[in-house]
Amino acid sequence: MSSSAPDRSLQMTSTLTAAGDLVLDLATVQTPAPGPDEVLIQIEATPVNPSDLGVLLGPADPARARREGARTVIPLSPAALKAASRRLGHTLTIGNEGAGLVIAAGDQARDLLGRRVALLGGGMYAQHRLAKAADCLVLPEGTTAAEGAAAFVNPLTVLAMIETMRLEGHTALVHTAAASNLGQMLVKVCAEDQIPLVNVVRRPEQAELLRGLGAEHVCDSSAPGFDDDLRAAVAATAATLAFDAIGGGRIASQILAAMEAAATARMTDFSVYGSIERKQVYIYGVLDTGPTELLRNFGMTWNVGGWLMPPILMRLGPERAAQLRQRVLAGLKTVFASHYSREISLAELLEPEVLLASTRKATGEKLLINPTR
Amino acid sequence: MSSSAPDRSLQMTSTLTAAGDLVLDLATVQTPAPGPDEVLIQIEATPVNPSDLGVLLGPADPARARREGARTVIPLSPAALKAASRRLGHTLTIGNEGAGLVIAAGDQARDLLGRRVALLGGGMYAQHRLAKAADCLVLPEGTTAAEGAAAFVNPLTVLAMIETMRLEGHTALVHTAAASNLGQMLVKVCAEDQIPLVNVVRRPEQAELLRGLGAEHVCDSSAPGFDDDLRAAVAATAATLAFDAIGGGRIASQILAAMEAAATARMTDFSVYGSIERKQVYIYGVLDTGPTELLRNFGMTWNVGGWLMPPILMRLGPERAAQLRQRVLAGLKTVFASHYSREISLAELLEPEVLLASTRKATGEKLLINPTR
Repeated sequence: MSSSAPDRSLQMTSTLTAAGDLVLDLATVQTPAPGPDEVLIQIEATPVNPSDLGVLLGPADPARARREGARTVIPLSPAALKAASRRLGHTLTIGNEGAGLVIAAGDQARDLLGRRVALLGGGMYAQHRLAKAADCLVLPEGTTAAEGAAAFVNPLTVLAMIETMRLEGHTALVHTAAASNLGQMLVKVCAEDQIPLVNVVRRPEQAELLRGLGAEHVCDSSAPGFDDDLRAAVAATAATLAFDAIGGGRIASQILAAMEAAATARMTDFSVYGSIERKQVYIYGVLDTGPTELLRNFGMTWNVGGWLMPPILMRLGPERAAQLRQRVLAGLKTVFASHYSREISLAELLEPEVLLASTRKATGEKLLINPTR
Repeated sequence: MSSSAPDRSLQMTSTLTAAGDLVLDLATVQTPAPGPDEVLIQIEATPVNPSDLGVLLGPADPARARREGARTVIPLSPAALKAASRRLGHTLTIGNEGAGLVIAAGDQARDLLGRRVALLGGGMYAQHRLAKAADCLVLPEGTTAAEGAAAFVNPLTVLAMIETMRLEGHTALVHTAAASNLGQMLVKVCAEDQIPLVNVVRRPEQAELLRGLGAEHVCDSSAPGFDDDLRAAVAATAATLAFDAIGGGRIASQILAAMEAAATARMTDFSVYGSIERKQVYIYGVLDTGPTELLRNFGMTWNVGGWLMPPILMRLGPERAAQLRQRVLAGLKTVFASHYSREISLAELLEPEVLLASTRKATGEKLLINPTR
């Protein structure tokens, strides 16, 4: 092994204490040494995705966060504590993905020394991260850590949505909260693959943003004619699959009703049970934590379910998953580019006002952590 | 062809008029003559299932029904009219299943003449019904029409639920509104097949009824400890599949939360995304027409969807479907026996007070129509 690593290293942790406090900390840990097939990555960039905030905060309300020395403490409400009871006593590390420089390597991994790599796998909100050499995605020459930091979660989620569509026999997509970083990627990938896409956004300026990217079907749920717009777009695309990042409220129900209206319009006979075309809404996000309300005015052939990207990659198998990763690498500066509103240090993320801002879920607010700061 | 059929015959119809009225009528039609492979059945018994009322009434409120001569008219509220707009101008016949005597037969179907048969297929609320000989289920000697009238919908729904469980890899069931005729059958069939079953009922006397049938797990949603009872029963049975006849409200959500609690208790590690065990609730009834409310406090691996029996029979194929029908025939007087609170004529069903009583959905209230009265 060869190494230029310091002895001690910072690692962000989130712990739910028996007292009912969520304690966020930067723990000082011994810098790990790579085994023969491992490398040590000095993390240079790691994005703040909604899924990372989910692990960091659980059901805690960042508005209640306060500093206690170097730590940030958030007392949980009784309801939040009950919802998080399975976390009690667990100390979780944070950060699904990131990129950085290989500064130490085991004997079988020396070819990676000095290379910039991206990694998916948790615990990236840290100064250093040990990884199997085989798990590292070597970034092409000329790719910065910031460009490679988000090479997994959003790009592979977008591609896994499209793979799900194909696996389950659909031919078009509906996507909500479509002006998100992920939604913008989906617009570009669907354009490349000629997949009809209905984009549902919540504000006029988001509709403009997507139209500026070339999106054909954009429905603004704040507009008075939204339901008619949605039905027209769903009918025009014949979409029978939706991915919903919102979760709460009636948007899933509205989408299913639009799909059913289009499906019954394609029927020649009448059935009180509605159409038999398979209609599916997958909920993959929680922008609205309230209950999902289904009016069930969409026949009897429908499904609403949770959805995660990793099980789809498992289902596709390693060969197809590798093809998807190669597609991402080739598009890191174009289709799969992420855009950040601000770069911060590890410590800054734990400041109560930064936590609060990061959970505001406004489109365009996206933080990148640089642990070398 | 040989026949003892009268020239004219009564047929119940439900029509949504352009004026926004649902008109229920007994139309006088020409008695149809069987083709070579057909028979004419004189219907002697046909049950009033919730699914029949769904076709008869759509979203109309029977409390608003009034007689106009021989017809019953229900003015639809604007909301109901909108919900039923696809029915506009359609005249529907009613009655999914029934039994009766073959009184005329085509040349290739003469062996059925004089036999008592059961039939599934719509239009059974009539004095006579034409059918393909091949679609008739010949009832065993000594079976009355009343005993054979409900040989399809409830029995095959129960068996299709169990087949769905096996097809989709589950090993136990949760069932709501479990004291219904169908629910009582499910208790008996699950006992025969040694399938763990969690019965959810809404009143103490319903719990008693099911315990009297030998049901092991009965949870009364009107009891203060219901949620704990449900969680304990779901954990004890390891059920990950539920069939819900209620539809509205939070029962599907509660069941998924109970399944998730049991699944995470079986996990050795912690994940913010919850367990990866597949958890499914199928909604097959509409006892509560209100929205389905999902709290999504059950991880990311879950599905809620509509469910109907016929697509499952299609999926199983004709050979397995025939086996299921034979099992029903063998159990018509025992496991698959239906119980009726009252026998009525075709005309009586259209009386406003009978319509209202039939939709009251109280367990034990079940009507049998005898069109020969």
